[in-house]
Amino acid sequence: MSQTKDTSFMDTIVSLCKRRGFVFQASEIYGGIGNTYDYGPLGVELKRRVKEAWWTRMVTLRDDIVGLDSAIIQNPKTWETSGHVSGFTDPMVDCKKCKGRFRADKIEDARCPERPSKKPGECGGELTEARAFNLMFKTHVGAAEDSSSIAYLRPETAQGIFLNFKNVLESSRVKPPFGIAQIGKSFRNEITPGNFVFRTREFEQAEMEFFIPPAQNEQWYKHWVAERASWYSDFGIDPAKLRLREHAADELAHYSTGCTDVEYEYPFGWGELEGIACRTDFDLKRHSEASGKDLRYFDQETKEKYFPWVIEPAAGIDRAALTFLIDAYDEEEVEGEKRVVLHFHPEIAPITVGIFPLVKKEGMPEKAAEIERMLRTSRLRTYYDESAAIGRRYRRQDEIGTPFCVTVDGDTMKDDVVTIRHRDTMVQEKLKVAEIEGWIANAMRSWKRPAR
Amino acid sequence: MSQTKDTSFMDTIVSLCKRRGFVFQASEIYGGIGNTYDYGPLGVELKRRVKEAWWTRMVTLRDDIVGLDSAIIQNPKTWETSGHVSGFTDPMVDCKKCKGRFRADKIEDARCPERPSKKPGECGGELTEARAFNLMFKTHVGAAEDSSSIAYLRPETAQGIFLNFKNVLESSRVKPPFGIAQIGKSFRNEITPGNFVFRTREFEQAEMEFFIPPAQNEQWYKHWVAERASWYSDFGIDPAKLRLREHAADELAHYSTGCTDVEYEYPFGWGELEGIACRTDFDLKRHSEASGKDLRYFDQETKEKYFPWVIEPAAGIDRAALTFLIDAYDEEEVEGEKRVVLHFHPEIAPITVGIFPLVKKEGMPEKAAEIERMLRTSRLRTYYDESAAIGRRYRRQDEIGTPFCVTVDGDTMKDDVVTIRHRDTMVQEKLKVAEIEGWIANAMRSWKRPAR
Repeated sequence: MSQTKDTSFMDTIVSLCKRRGFVFQASEIYGGIGNTYDYGPLGVELKRRVKEAWWTRMVTLRDDIVGLDSAIIQNPKTWETSGHVSGFTDPMVDCKKCKGRFRADKIEDARCPERPSKKPGECGGELTEARAFNLMFKTHVGAAEDSSSIAYLRPETAQGIFLNFKNVLESSRVKPPFGIAQIGKSFRNEITPGNFVFRTREFEQAEMEFFIPPAQNEQWYKHWVAERASWYSDFGIDPAKLRLREHAADELAHYSTGCTDVEYEYPFGWGELEGIACRTDFDLKRHSEASGKDLRYFDQETKEKYFPWVIEPAAGIDRAALTFLIDAYDEEEVEGEKRVVLHFHPEIAPITVGIFPLVKKEGMPEKAAEIERMLRTSRLRTYYDESAAIGRRYRRQDEIGTPFCVTVDGDTMKDDVVTIRHRDTMVQEKLKVAEIEGWIANAMRSWKRPAR
Repeated sequence: MSQTKDTSFMDTIVSLCKRRGFVFQASEIYGGIGNTYDYGPLGVELKRRVKEAWWTRMVTLRDDIVGLDSAIIQNPKTWETSGHVSGFTDPMVDCKKCKGRFRADKIEDARCPERPSKKPGECGGELTEARAFNLMFKTHVGAAEDSSSIAYLRPETAQGIFLNFKNVLESSRVKPPFGIAQIGKSFRNEITPGNFVFRTREFEQAEMEFFIPPAQNEQWYKHWVAERASWYSDFGIDPAKLRLREHAADELAHYSTGCTDVEYEYPFGWGELEGIACRTDFDLKRHSEASGKDLRYFDQETKEKYFPWVIEPAAGIDRAALTFLIDAYDEEEVEGEKRVVLHFHPEIAPITVGIFPLVKKEGMPEKAAEIERMLRTSRLRTYYDESAAIGRRYRRQDEIGTPFCVTVDGDTMKDDVVTIRHRDTMVQEKLKVAEIEGWIANAMRSWKRPAR
């Protein structure tokens, strides 16, 4: 790995994302909109793979976690109770002259909008005292537009799970320890720029609330920290770039008994990839008090009624997708030319297999198209390419992380034999058309992160 | 089918949805929030299946459509250009006395909030003239909260596709005819109640914009009307309850050359399930003019530069899920008892296979759990149940639409032979444990909607 992962490396990633259709600036034709991005054809498939990998591991493969999909706009009492209305704020100061608004805790890095080479206040304006600025997006629901109709876009998916705790208990025959998992959009009115899709105004969260008897707090906390960290390395993230950071006592919310971040070493420094938090019974108890509904669990065996405690692994799908992209990126010299390659885990790669006719004649395009249809019908994500030299076509697939390429040549027309090439090793093998699917399935199962 | 599909039938569906964990009222513990619902453990799996069925058919299995995932909050110029800021309105009247607000075009069905047995105005208040009330949710982005920071939650996903047309063209080597598909949430500030999840304030859309040379308008319009209608019947919807309704000339938007609704006969009458619209080059041309960016396509072969025309099939995932639920529902008498069954297509069913030990002893629970783990590891959606009589357990799975149930009994312990039961026919077969997966895969492929 010769590439230095620094700021220019982020530029490389951003440029690759735009050029190949992973991520575009949102509303680009209108000059964009702050901290917001759209996912292109490859980006949407990448995100779909990341979400599928999370859901499969957290829900489908487990017998103790069920799913949920709650609304983005809930009754505003939800956010009063959770503390977001009063406490989900950043301290902001205003300039009385130029009307600029700045994060009080990041004022050293801010610039005056009137004189961009100067710091806030250097336009001659006086800065106000810091005021709490709520990060929730506010809107109005229904016909009226007054204080009675105020509602918020959720700043996290977790509260939707607590709201439905009783409904899930009553409909799904679950009992602690059990979890409720959810993937969905959340919104935060971030003022500061966010390192591409690392921090965006709208983002997709993958959160799971694991409800437990209080005595099992320590055991499940440890379980989930280990399990979530290994999910990233199992899907190809370099373990040397992952670390666990346990929050110090003074960083914890007053109700929390512990919190650990899974951090990744980004080009811009170590950053939070996922947080695993002990939330105790704080949320269920608060919602119980505020709603007047008893949200305790009744244990049929012990005849005990109690508020379960909660362990919450909270991941971000956009951040995870960015991390898979950054971590997969590699440049190397092959036969005197630069090869850019994304070493995605095959389950994460947007396209699974490229299919090429060696030349655009002798029936090869038709044969290759036939093989592509066959693989596509088996729901493999395929890409057919017949333009340019074969080496160039391999490079194009390397750059978007396609793990396998199948080439149709003279042997195929004669003996039904194709060449299959592995992205990571560039090793090519010959095999029968009928063997392609089995070969790919096996190569996906046995994939290992290449040393580099 | 003895059940009369009327209003009480909707109550049956709503009640089943809550009891079994398909759909809950959002923020129920706080008295709810209008026209908003949350999806429970079975509902989220149902929606996942519906989305997967749409995406597979529209993107994965085709070589002429790519995916996209654009942001919910775009630059507000988007909605000025699309016409939503000025034209996406309902006419509303206010009561000057009680301050009630009512849809002017539905005032006959409205009730005075002060005197709910009376019509608007009968509280003695004077009604205002009708005013246009915009259905877009408004919010503010960034630090300021004034007119310069107004933004909207998207009322449709389609515009995000037009915004990215050029980016997709440049990154993905596509050429007309080709499509861009997207699934995502949209928001409309609906005032009137919406028949459960048929019409909700936030809803998940599945839209595809198919870009074509103008001369191919008629041909592709016909293609997409037929293709989208058959998607519903292929996944089990009763063709007798589907019809196509072509819009009359005076219903069409001024720019449109045609629009057809796929309608379904709901318990509350015929309603739109999906619309397929000819949008001509209206959107690309408007965004081109407003942004100053040339959004024409340059055809390398004909050397012609033109705005592609667009055919748009626009479906709603929540509405589709509701339709699959309603259509699948059946009641029949079996051995003197009522059997409630959801005849979901196996690809749509939230759970694929239930696994039961016949009795809770003789090693059967352990064996059944082992088989469940095996099927789960193959990513089948499974449900293990060991409580109550076996007939009762079958009924529980029937009611949530699980197509197959496997029972472990004495034969399993002796000869590795299980009983597998088909939901629709209630026919039971004996087979080896090792044959279960193959049997299920085959039964899924060959499933036909049962006559009833």
